[in-house]
Amino acid sequence: MFSTIHNEQDQLSKQILNAASELYLKYGFKKVTMDDISKTIGKSRTSIYYYYKNREEVFQAVLSSLVQEVAAEIGNAMDEQKTIEEKIRAFCLTKITTSESKKPFFTAVEAGMNAEEKSRHSRVMEVVHQHLMDGEKIILTKALSESSSKKEIRLLTQEEQDTVIFILQSSIRGIKREMILKNSFDDLNTTVDVLTSMTIKWLE
Amino acid sequence: MFSTIHNEQDQLSKQILNAASELYLKYGFKKVTMDDISKTIGKSRTSIYYYYKNREEVFQAVLSSLVQEVAAEIGNAMDEQKTIEEKIRAFCLTKITTSESKKPFFTAVEAGMNAEEKSRHSRVMEVVHQHLMDGEKIILTKALSESSSKKEIRLLTQEEQDTVIFILQSSIRGIKREMILKNSFDDLNTTVDVLTSMTIKWLE
Repeated sequence: MFSTIHNEQDQLSKQILNAASELYLKYGFKKVTMDDISKTIGKSRTSIYYYYKNREEVFQAVLSSLVQEVAAEIGNAMDEQKTIEEKIRAFCLTKITTSESKKPFFTAVEAGMNAEEKSRHSRVMEVVHQHLMDGEKIILTKALSESSSKKEIRLLTQEEQDTVIFILQSSIRGIKREMILKNSFDDLNTTVDVLTSMTIKWLE
Repeated sequence: MFSTIHNEQDQLSKQILNAASELYLKYGFKKVTMDDISKTIGKSRTSIYYYYKNREEVFQAVLSSLVQEVAAEIGNAMDEQKTIEEKIRAFCLTKITTSESKKPFFTAVEAGMNAEEKSRHSRVMEVVHQHLMDGEKIILTKALSESSSKKEIRLLTQEEQDTVIFILQSSIRGIKREMILKNSFDDLNTTVDVLTSMTIKWLE
């Protein structure tokens, strides 16, 4: 019985986040009130306040679930692959494609923000970014450890493992940024292939 | 005689850029007029207009000379090294340290800009960035070609060469950004060592 209540609560909490997400996409974060969310899901404001103290908390929760979604997509894409080489390539490609697919959401969210709000928002985004980095690190650590137990790659020290993961994460972000500036993702596959191959040669 | 005149002109042109640079650093681009520059170097405004049509042109010229300076610093640091491994490491480290050293200039330049001016300025900065990327590419291409003629590394196809150069450039930029976010450059040497080693293993 407790688990039923718990499930219903989870359901409502998800409903709130989905509704908020869609409203942000349409009107931007700035314009969406707790009242808008309660009207959209047809529940009282009190029931929303039971989960989230204020609109900022709803927003944080939407961002957290988005991070989990992106990390899960990356993790799934890697799990579908067998060798560490394929897993690293999948990591790079999925990291770029999923983050690009979330872009319209973030553009919409920022609609109508003034300079001060944007600066506060960019600090929130830094935290979101750090959470994604942490999530990705867990996934990559698991893939590298499994691969080294299978003797597919050499045994890495903690520092080596942390460094190669950090390089992969930041390189891909740097590559994505340059491709956005050049407004062309034509060389994406070639670039990811070479980055993967560089990494594998170093891991072997 | 012609060359003397030419030298004097070069001198004045440099004086204008140096004066403008210092004024931007003190007051930001927005507040610096052609009049300020002429007063600082003690020459008539006409003599400045002989070189630069308007304040935007002075600004562009200051930025161009800055790009040349950064590219030269990177090139010199690489020239001081013998092996391609040392040259790549020098490229990575100098790219981060010189661009960080120019940061106070760019922060100062943007002082007092409103949203519209900032957006125009960021387009100018994209062009500046592209020029630096082009300059670095020339330097790295030279280093790789020399190294492969010495049989230190294998012979690369044009595509391989372009790709590895692009990866180095964007990775270092991505790594720098992450370190700025984390507000720590403690792992810089370890990170650059691994990135260099990955690159060398792929080039061998």
